[in-house]
Amino acid sequence: MGLELYLDLLSQPCRAVYIFAKKNRIPFELRTVDLREGQHLSDAFAQVNPLQKVPVLKDGDFVLTESVAILLYLARKYKVPDHWYPQDPQACARVDEYLAWQHTALRRNCLRALWHKVMLPVFLGELVSPETLAATLAELDMALQFLQDKAFLTGPHISLADLVSCLHHAPVFKGRPKLAAWRQRVEAAVGEALFQEAHEVILKAKDSQPADPTLKQKMLPKVLAMIQ
Amino acid sequence: MGLELYLDLLSQPCRAVYIFAKKNRIPFELRTVDLREGQHLSDAFAQVNPLQKVPVLKDGDFVLTESVAILLYLARKYKVPDHWYPQDPQACARVDEYLAWQHTALRRNCLRALWHKVMLPVFLGELVSPETLAATLAELDMALQFLQDKAFLTGPHISLADLVSCLHHAPVFKGRPKLAAWRQRVEAAVGEALFQEAHEVILKAKDSQPADPTLKQKMLPKVLAMIQ
Repeated sequence: MGLELYLDLLSQPCRAVYIFAKKNRIPFELRTVDLREGQHLSDAFAQVNPLQKVPVLKDGDFVLTESVAILLYLARKYKVPDHWYPQDPQACARVDEYLAWQHTALRRNCLRALWHKVMLPVFLGELVSPETLAATLAELDMALQFLQDKAFLTGPHISLADLVSCLHHAPVFKGRPKLAAWRQRVEAAVGEALFQEAHEVILKAKDSQPADPTLKQKMLPKVLAMIQ
Repeated sequence: MGLELYLDLLSQPCRAVYIFAKKNRIPFELRTVDLREGQHLSDAFAQVNPLQKVPVLKDGDFVLTESVAILLYLARKYKVPDHWYPQDPQACARVDEYLAWQHTALRRNCLRALWHKVMLPVFLGELVSPETLAATLAELDMALQFLQDKAFLTGPHISLADLVSCLHHAPVFKGRPKLAAWRQRVEAAVGEALFQEAHEVILKAKDSQPADPTLKQKMLPKVLAMIQ
C-alpha cells in the first residue's frame, strides 16, 4: 500500500496537507473522514488514530498524526523545492518559529472563530452570545497584529508556514490590504485551481446541514473542549 | 557577540533550552529575564522580543523565539548527537509529532496546572476555586493517557520531545510508576547535576514572594489570557 492521507477539507490542517501533497505531485490515496458525519469518532477510525483527529498519514505501516509533522515528513521524503522548508539554518528557523507559534496563537483563534461564528450555531444548533463572539474575534485580531510585513509569512518565498496559516478564506481581509495581498500571493504560488478546489468545502460550511440529535450529543462536549 | 539565551528557569520551555545547550556544551551567554520581576514586560525586553515571552535566542543579529524553533536551530547548528533529532525520517517524524502535539495538549495543561495550583494563589494572590483546579488536573490527567509506553517519549533514546515535555518536576508521578520511571531515565540521560540545577527555580516556585500591587495589576490580565 502506498501513501494514504485521511482528511476532511473542512479542517484547515487537512487543507494544508492536501494542498502541499497536490502541489508537489506527491501521489496519495485520499481517505475522506467526514467530520460532520462523525466519522472521526467511529471505532474504525480510532484504529487509525486513537486521538480521533485528522489529518493522518499512513505510509505502509507507519502512521503519523499532526499536520506539521506530516508536512515535514512529506517535505523530506519527496525532496520538494527548498523554499517550502529551507536548508538555510536561519530561514528554516523562521519557518519552525511560525509553525510553533501558530499552535496556540493564530490556529487556536481561527478555530474558535470558525466554531463560534459558523459551526456551533449552524451545525450543532448552539447559539453563541454576541459577547463571546466579539471576544473571540478581538483575540484573533490581536494575533493578526504579529504577522510580519514580508512577501510571505517567513520570507520572500512561500513556505510551510503560509500553508499552515488558517487565513486563506476567513473574512479577515476587510480593512487589511496587506493581509489580503499576501493571501493573493499564496493563491498565485499554489495555483488558483488547486487553491479553490481545496477551499470548496470550507466556503460552503455555512450551508452545513444541522447534525442529528445523537451526533450532536456525541460531538458537542468534544467540540467545546477543543475550542475552550 | 556570540550566542545569547534569554531565559527564566521558572519557565519550562526555558528549562528545555537550558538543559539542551548545557548538555551539548554549546557555549552561550545567559541573559536572565526574571518573570516574577516583570522583566519580560519591560521596554528593554520588548526590543528583543515584542511578544514579551521567553525563551529568546540571539545569535549575532539573528533573533529567534519559540523554544521548539530554538532547540531545532541549536541541534542543527551544533551538530549534536543524532538521538536528539534523528536523521531517520520516521524517527524524526515521531519527534515532530510530539513537538506539535504538546503545544495544545500537555504544555497547555501543565501551564494551567502550575498557575492554578501555585502561581496564581501564591504569587498573584488570586485564589482558584477547587472546581477549576479539579477540572484543570482532570484535563492534565487525560493528556497523560496518551503518553506512549516506550523508554523515552518517541523511541528508545532521549530526544527533544523528552526535554520539551513539562513533566519533570510536576507531582504527577504518584500512582504512575511508568511515568516516574521515564522521568528517572530522562534525569539519568541528562545527568543528575544538570537536571537538578535546571529545576531549582521551579521547585521553589511555591515559596515565591507575592507580587507588588503595581506588578500584579500589570501581569494578571496577561496571565489569565495565557492560561485561559
